[in-house]
Amino acid sequence: MSMNRRDLVKLGAAAAIGSYATRALGGRSASGASEAIEKWGAYEISLPGPSSGNPFVETQLKATFQHEHRSVEVAGFYDGDGDYRLRFMPDTLGKWSWETSSNAADLNGKTGMFACVAPSPGNHGPVGVAHQFHFQYADGSPFFPFGTTCYSWAFLGETLENATLETLRTAPFNKVRMCLLPKPVLDIELFALPFPRDASGTNDFTRFDPAYFQHIEKGVQELLQLGIEADLILFHPYDIWGYEAMPLEDADRYLRYSVARLSAYRNVWWSLANEYDLIRTRTPADWDRFFRVVQESDPYSHLRSVHHSRVLYDHSKPWVTHASLQTFAFENTAEWRAAWQKPIIFDEMQYEGDISSRWGNLSPQEMTRRFWMALISGAYATHGETYVTSFEGPVTADGGKLLGSSPQRIAFLKKLLQGSTSAGLNSVDGSYYLCAATPHVVYLYFFDYHEPANYEFPLPDTETFVAELIDPWEMTITSIPGTFSGNSKLKLPGKPYLGVRFQKTT
Amino acid sequence: MSMNRRDLVKLGAAAAIGSYATRALGGRSASGASEAIEKWGAYEISLPGPSSGNPFVETQLKATFQHEHRSVEVAGFYDGDGDYRLRFMPDTLGKWSWETSSNAADLNGKTGMFACVAPSPGNHGPVGVAHQFHFQYADGSPFFPFGTTCYSWAFLGETLENATLETLRTAPFNKVRMCLLPKPVLDIELFALPFPRDASGTNDFTRFDPAYFQHIEKGVQELLQLGIEADLILFHPYDIWGYEAMPLEDADRYLRYSVARLSAYRNVWWSLANEYDLIRTRTPADWDRFFRVVQESDPYSHLRSVHHSRVLYDHSKPWVTHASLQTFAFENTAEWRAAWQKPIIFDEMQYEGDISSRWGNLSPQEMTRRFWMALISGAYATHGETYVTSFEGPVTADGGKLLGSSPQRIAFLKKLLQGSTSAGLNSVDGSYYLCAATPHVVYLYFFDYHEPANYEFPLPDTETFVAELIDPWEMTITSIPGTFSGNSKLKLPGKPYLGVRFQKTT
Repeated sequence: MSMNRRDLVKLGAAAAIGSYATRALGGRSASGASEAIEKWGAYEISLPGPSSGNPFVETQLKATFQHEHRSVEVAGFYDGDGDYRLRFMPDTLGKWSWETSSNAADLNGKTGMFACVAPSPGNHGPVGVAHQFHFQYADGSPFFPFGTTCYSWAFLGETLENATLETLRTAPFNKVRMCLLPKPVLDIELFALPFPRDASGTNDFTRFDPAYFQHIEKGVQELLQLGIEADLILFHPYDIWGYEAMPLEDADRYLRYSVARLSAYRNVWWSLANEYDLIRTRTPADWDRFFRVVQESDPYSHLRSVHHSRVLYDHSKPWVTHASLQTFAFENTAEWRAAWQKPIIFDEMQYEGDISSRWGNLSPQEMTRRFWMALISGAYATHGETYVTSFEGPVTADGGKLLGSSPQRIAFLKKLLQGSTSAGLNSVDGSYYLCAATPHVVYLYFFDYHEPANYEFPLPDTETFVAELIDPWEMTITSIPGTFSGNSKLKLPGKPYLGVRFQKTT
Repeated sequence: MSMNRRDLVKLGAAAAIGSYATRALGGRSASGASEAIEKWGAYEISLPGPSSGNPFVETQLKATFQHEHRSVEVAGFYDGDGDYRLRFMPDTLGKWSWETSSNAADLNGKTGMFACVAPSPGNHGPVGVAHQFHFQYADGSPFFPFGTTCYSWAFLGETLENATLETLRTAPFNKVRMCLLPKPVLDIELFALPFPRDASGTNDFTRFDPAYFQHIEKGVQELLQLGIEADLILFHPYDIWGYEAMPLEDADRYLRYSVARLSAYRNVWWSLANEYDLIRTRTPADWDRFFRVVQESDPYSHLRSVHHSRVLYDHSKPWVTHASLQTFAFENTAEWRAAWQKPIIFDEMQYEGDISSRWGNLSPQEMTRRFWMALISGAYATHGETYVTSFEGPVTADGGKLLGSSPQRIAFLKKLLQGSTSAGLNSVDGSYYLCAATPHVVYLYFFDYHEPANYEFPLPDTETFVAELIDPWEMTITSIPGTFSGNSKLKLPGKPYLGVRFQKTT
């Protein structure tokens, strides 16, 4: 967990052994032997193969990984310069063997094996859905998403990329929304583009530039090292290169290539798009198609959603694992939970900042409030920051150093939640004030702009609770003397934006 | 304007002269002679008449007031103890004569005259609608409603009634919503009830208790002395006496009696009900009927509206002068203005206070914000306060001393508005940030929770403007150096809940 950026770059240059090379990607390096890989680590096979013609289209490569009677098939991908790769994330301890098949003789029938060993500390596996409306890691530990937004961080250039990692190292965020395809940001010149492009500006969507993908992938690895989920945005409407016009078959290939490259990283989530409904070239049926392509290609079923601008996607569709929303209509959470029966993340609730755009200049108090509102409504939230002064000009939550005052309050809320429950909070139906609970265990109230001098809290009379007054902005937790059971009237301090937490006495 | 409460009570006891007595009610006393009355003052004729049987039902009395070729017919009313009264508010300077007609010989054919003289300072006449969405006094001076709510103040007992008047004397409010029918408040014992009631609790709706109405009327006069409009609530659902079950014909009589008594006071507005839709005994057609009865009875066409709980009344109906709403959906103002083409008052936007009820414990910051939001949306607002500590127990904006911190901020906003325009502000359609204007004269922006570091304000380029930064909570107005015309980019201080005012240079 303590590898720095330079180590990772070195690791990427590991040499081939015999006719193939294997290595661990990200996470702990396999201890001295390439044949040991930690559970939920990324195992990679590198094979030399044909480089003539169009290897991206003409060469088929897959491998079957076998553990006892179970087999998992994974697709390989071409990484340029005659180099083919296959990646696999084992989820079960013990011996795994593998065998390749390909239409290229050099790549066909290769075999190998490795031992899947215990995960290193901090490796809890990929995140999945749990308790219907919540998330947890594969090892069963809870995961409460407290996201932020760094759309462009992985292609902003070394200085800003390092600044992003540095700021995330101490920030409370455990999920980052980031674009896989480039997005124009100020006058930053991109180190590469994902598709070869001729002098006239015509894209060749039948090929990829591995250098582009290698660099984004490094970003995913770096987030993994920080224990941060990479919510990878596969399409977006901020396009100056004509990617919106990519034919559907090419879009499918791009998705399969991305999944083959990246799905072995346990911290990957798939966000089919940012503001999908602003991509005018696609129909609703296209989005269903893209979801299915990703779902078919991903052996690990990483989390999948899509983010909207104005037109909600139908999150009840079976390939959607959770809702990823752009809105701050927290009053709708209960209805949406009932309709979709899935976790909800308010992935864009506007931005803390000071740019001129209405969506980009929330006060830090308002951003803090929205995190509370989202959580108490039974959902999760994602932060984003747009301070003019963070760059030479306006930047839309693209990455760089965080300058705002909400992150420390979000850290406070995250710690409060983690200290309250492992199952997540669900909003209490018909509660007179906003309240979320793990029933009979913890009740968390948020009073928003209300400031009652007294309130009789309708606690269950089957348990006894201790109470604390929470100040989300001052970040204080003050014990209220006594224990409480059943309807319990408490005096409150006559100040807005406070919370009250009741926890069952042990 | 400087009469105190005791003076008014004395005035109420003016002696009869000959077979009738006349006097000025409220306002300036007719200077020495009962035959002179100021414009928009209340002239009263008192006549002895029959007291046997049921005078409220059996005796008909009216008078015709004549000025040159114009005549105005007004209804009289029985005030108990054989005393009949007729009241009239002249709106034209000069000589007026009058003659009564009645089915009782003692009351019939009486005549008299008086001179209508110039109004005293501070008497601007009754308030009416102006500029489509705004209000003004009859003398043409602007009236911007900044209301408060004292539902029960006129029947809370001497101590609390005086406390209410004392607090209103220095408060910014120029309109008070108050109930005409009693409302149960704590354990306060009422000095009287509007209708005689027998030991078994049966109301006699065919009679009134003049003592009850005289007392409420004194409250209306006292508000008039303070320059405050009395927004008189004629019905409400907070009933423990069975008034909701009053037969329609009796309800009509109650309305006609109230209008005959009170309409000569220039500060009267008619609010048909508070939360009309919670009065289960009435149909929508009943409310239309009540509106028509009030409209037919009132010679002066005082302002008329009705206040709702959940079901909006159709304010486009012709007898409605303005919309009186319970909501804080300021985002709907533009649509409602377009639909109704009438002024809108957000007459209940919840309450500043600290009671347990969700609607009764807004922070003063939130109440202040709602006033700004209402105003900038092109409407007006009404305050109300519900602090537990203002009485022995919870009180719903019933009267007494104001304890909150929003009134001084509302005073600041009122003064700001008065200093900005005489025609009222209309929201600017399609404005990127919330903005209200008298176009080409003044533009008032409110940034709510937004804090842009810069914003390019789209001013007209046909005038030059000076700019000020407004802090609604700190109550400061800070000049921004320079003058501005056309699109003008200003630096802002990175703080939420600020306003910016642009005024045309003179």
